[in-house]
Amino acid sequence: MGHDFPKLTAEEAAELIPNGAMVGVSGFTPAGSPKAVPSALAKRARALHDAGEEFQIRLLSGASTGEACDDALAEAHAVSWRAPYLTSAPMRKLANTGRLDFIDMHLSHVAQMVAGGILGPMDVAIVEATEITREGRVYLTTAIGNSPTFLQKADRVIIELNSYHAPRIRELADVVVLPAPPNRAPILINDPLDRIGKQYAEVAPRKVVGVVHTHEPDGGRGFAPPDLVSRRIAKHVSRFLIDEIASGRIPPEFLPLQSGVGNVCNAVLAGLADSPGFPKFKVYTEVLQDAMLDLIADGSILGASTCSLTLTNEKLRFLYDHFDDFADRIVLRPQEISNSPEVARRLGIVAINTAIEVDVYGHVNSTHFYGTQIMNGLGGSGDFERNAYLSIFMCPSVAKGGRVSTIVPMCSHVDHSEHSVQVVATEHGLADLRGLAPHARARRIIDRCAHPAYRDYLRRYLESAPLGHLRHDLRRCFELHNNFLEGGVMLPD
Amino acid sequence: MGHDFPKLTAEEAAELIPNGAMVGVSGFTPAGSPKAVPSALAKRARALHDAGEEFQIRLLSGASTGEACDDALAEAHAVSWRAPYLTSAPMRKLANTGRLDFIDMHLSHVAQMVAGGILGPMDVAIVEATEITREGRVYLTTAIGNSPTFLQKADRVIIELNSYHAPRIRELADVVVLPAPPNRAPILINDPLDRIGKQYAEVAPRKVVGVVHTHEPDGGRGFAPPDLVSRRIAKHVSRFLIDEIASGRIPPEFLPLQSGVGNVCNAVLAGLADSPGFPKFKVYTEVLQDAMLDLIADGSILGASTCSLTLTNEKLRFLYDHFDDFADRIVLRPQEISNSPEVARRLGIVAINTAIEVDVYGHVNSTHFYGTQIMNGLGGSGDFERNAYLSIFMCPSVAKGGRVSTIVPMCSHVDHSEHSVQVVATEHGLADLRGLAPHARARRIIDRCAHPAYRDYLRRYLESAPLGHLRHDLRRCFELHNNFLEGGVMLPD
Ligand SMILES: CC(C)(COP(=O)(O)OP(=O)(O)OC[C@H]1O[C@@H](n2cnc3c(N)ncnc32)[C@H](O)[C@@H]1OP(=O)(O)O)[C@@H](O)C(=O)NCCC(=O)NCCS
Ligand SMILES: CC(C)(COP(=O)(O)OP(=O)(O)OC[C@H]1O[C@@H](n2cnc3c(N)ncnc32)[C@H](O)[C@@H]1OP(=O)(O)O)[C@@H](O)C(=O)NCCC(=O)NCCS
Repeated sequence: MGHDFPKLTAEEAAELIPNGAMVGVSGFTPAGSPKAVPSALAKRARALHDAGEEFQIRLLSGASTGEACDDALAEAHAVSWRAPYLTSAPMRKLANTGRLDFIDMHLSHVAQMVAGGILGPMDVAIVEATEITREGRVYLTTAIGNSPTFLQKADRVIIELNSYHAPRIRELADVVVLPAPPNRAPILINDPLDRIGKQYAEVAPRKVVGVVHTHEPDGGRGFAPPDLVSRRIAKHVSRFLIDEIASGRIPPEFLPLQSGVGNVCNAVLAGLADSPGFPKFKVYTEVLQDAMLDLIADGSILGASTCSLTLTNEKLRFLYDHFDDFADRIVLRPQEISNSPEVARRLGIVAINTAIEVDVYGHVNSTHFYGTQIMNGLGGSGDFERNAYLSIFMCPSVAKGGRVSTIVPMCSHVDHSEHSVQVVATEHGLADLRGLAPHARARRIIDRCAHPAYRDYLRRYLESAPLGHLRHDLRRCFELHNNFLEGGVMLPD
Repeated sequence: MGHDFPKLTAEEAAELIPNGAMVGVSGFTPAGSPKAVPSALAKRARALHDAGEEFQIRLLSGASTGEACDDALAEAHAVSWRAPYLTSAPMRKLANTGRLDFIDMHLSHVAQMVAGGILGPMDVAIVEATEITREGRVYLTTAIGNSPTFLQKADRVIIELNSYHAPRIRELADVVVLPAPPNRAPILINDPLDRIGKQYAEVAPRKVVGVVHTHEPDGGRGFAPPDLVSRRIAKHVSRFLIDEIASGRIPPEFLPLQSGVGNVCNAVLAGLADSPGFPKFKVYTEVLQDAMLDLIADGSILGASTCSLTLTNEKLRFLYDHFDDFADRIVLRPQEISNSPEVARRLGIVAINTAIEVDVYGHVNSTHFYGTQIMNGLGGSGDFERNAYLSIFMCPSVAKGGRVSTIVPMCSHVDHSEHSVQVVATEHGLADLRGLAPHARARRIIDRCAHPAYRDYLRRYLESAPLGHLRHDLRRCFELHNNFLEGGVMLPD
């Protein structure tokens, strides 16, 4: 499996990574992320720091990574610069306290920026695989992410050969690397399950400095069953999509669905699958979670294109045990393809993502609390939102036990503009904003989506704000946020 | 030319448009916009209003239209709903005073939303052409816009046959209508000048209720030669692009350029063409103005794909008089193709657009002053910004004689998020934001782009704001704007 490449321990491999190196890691979410070498690197960093030496790397990935990577490296203060996404609590803390440069990027941008040298040279890539051949074919595991590009661009490559994964996982992979512009041809995907590439990524064998053997699960976290609020949001969204089909605005066979991660998105998937008469459909998305695998298994979802299999250990085992049932119904793609604007627009995807807050005009904040604190980052939401046929954002109407309204006069950070957000849903209802001017959008969002306890405030804000195409009072538009920051509640009694 | 279709006066045609109708008009900017019927419709609306009757239409176009359309209809209060873009001062005034529902849309979205029935049925289309054949072939004039889709979807069609235009203009047209998803195939454009369609749009002849003969120029406005500030901005942008080529981050042959409208964009084009050794390049854009035609004529620009020829009367005459020189160097496309995310990303365009204001983190406001007053709308800037290989925004560092800084702590309206804005330039310098975390972006924008008179304020704002991934003080982030609104100057002495 590792052929002639030097066999290393994780510690030996970690020694090959110098202070200041730009390191690219495989995977997308914990799926396919390297495990042994990043942990060993974190230990090495601690030891060096204890000895008074500087040691920090620049870390680039597909999206978030697993605990053995982001958490371990953050806790060891071993990262100075991080892109394009994070979900790790310790990494987030560094980013929010000025101790880490975090760059929140569109996930579809990463490969072309690395390939173009825009982020500087990549010194080392650490890539998890089930096999590497003498000729440099690298068979990836549960996610493709940016690995094909990192393998091409990195000066030196460390492979983690993880025997936990079934070698057959390669049958799901469909690997291509887009050439640099202006030499790009069309991406010939007309259906989510179309295949256009190979089962493996490629690396120049001379660059492979070592192979580390591991046997570790991805350790993907499961989700609690959807709560009442998620189920209510899901009901509004499913009903809306059913009506759209009934009215002919969405074709009878439905359209490929992109669905964000988390409870609410899982509840929507389940809600659609449960709706009597709703057509079976395909998915074109970036993350496939347990709930979706179940729906593929029971036939409600006809198949999925994704960048990663973000499954719990049990569900991944189930996939491997019943591989024949899934082999031609799941395609694993690099993120420049799973999140491609070209493919998203052509297929006419319906994009469903979760918001942190939404303002009365339909701008969406996906990333920052109170204008300052990063949560996870944008992820693929911008890739999908802008190029979808229909773009839906959802969230509970309140957070923090009701002390925060997620419907606000003005978003404290805007990731998605009013021009790209077409539908907003909370547990109270759904607002279809298409074709509505700003004042009508505001009325609809307040009446249908805001929590009743905040509706009066929002209406009064608008009525008292200076008139314009949008009404806004720049002296008071963040009053709710400032109340919360000062007194812990947006609307004091 | 008009064949068997009923020949009508403009007044007779206007009579066919009922109160409340959704009307789609041809063109994109004044180019190709209908002239006689909208003017007659405005007169009819005035007469009806004088007689105490209600009369207002819903008006959909490619982008802005000419004076005979938007200005005339707005002055007659004959429009209740308008999309997707406007540059007309009277129309803007209605939108900003609550007397018009204006919907500011991504220009690439319009055709698919009309085709999908999302904006409601289209009652009447008014389309300018040089010819309509018995079979329903419609040869459009100086812009394609959404005419091919409007002709398909409208219940009734009025054709303005404008003999001002040279019939040979059809040789530039490349008309396709994309099918509805999920039945879309790749758009096979690999080079800005590739042709994939026909010279004409199509209409079912039975829907054509009349043909109106006209002889009217588009009346495109010219631009004064670039002023000093524009030339300085252009110098920074050209130098940056030259350096990008030198460093290999942009290929030696350059990439297709998308360029917004206006003085600064024209100055950049001229600046690139004037730079010794800068490669000759092609353009993939939505509007072609006088300056670009000159550069095609002198060979500095190898060719252009555009949605409209927004030329002065003299320059259009020049084009017609030298048509053979341009026939295979200009392609006129529908806006769902000129602004296609698929084509923009594949070609790897460099997008250069103008901002109203930019905040220290790189968010861009393209549309609204002070959070409330619409200027023109988003246009195609979002289509290009999100899918470009490199996205640049420019503006003078101050407006209103220095009383307004265009570099602000937080944008009062966000159309383009920090994730999509890669380079910012003013007359003071250029900030390349790629790969930089928020604090570094802020420093760079303030140091290089802000007007010196505002730099201290901006630095102090940041230093005193609560720490986070972004620093922001939601009590003070609009202090400059509020100063201006209250006292007419952002930084009182
Ligand atoms: C928006 C996003 C954070 C929501 O995640 P989620 O797990 O569904 O959200 P939850 O409702 O559980 O909220 C997560 C936390 O944010 C808090 N929160 C949510 N909205 C808030 C608001 N407006 N103000 C303050 N806190 C808020 C919640 O209270 C919760 O905090 P806690 O963990 O301390 O209880 C998440 O979807 C995300 O990061 N999206 C951006 C990336 C993306 O869209 N990717 C899509 C392609 S996969
Ligand atoms: C942004 C945009 C308005 C700039 O247009 P422009 O003609 O280059 O800009 P100017 O510098 O002449 O400014 C236009 C007006 O706005 C004012 N202005 C500009 N920035 C301002 C600011 N931050 N605050 C207040 N006023 C401002 C100017 O003072 C000027 O007003 P005046 O006419 O009363 O003197 C224009 O490019 C636009 O509408 N863009 C959005 C659409 C788009 O990007 N299309 C791209 C594809 S074609």
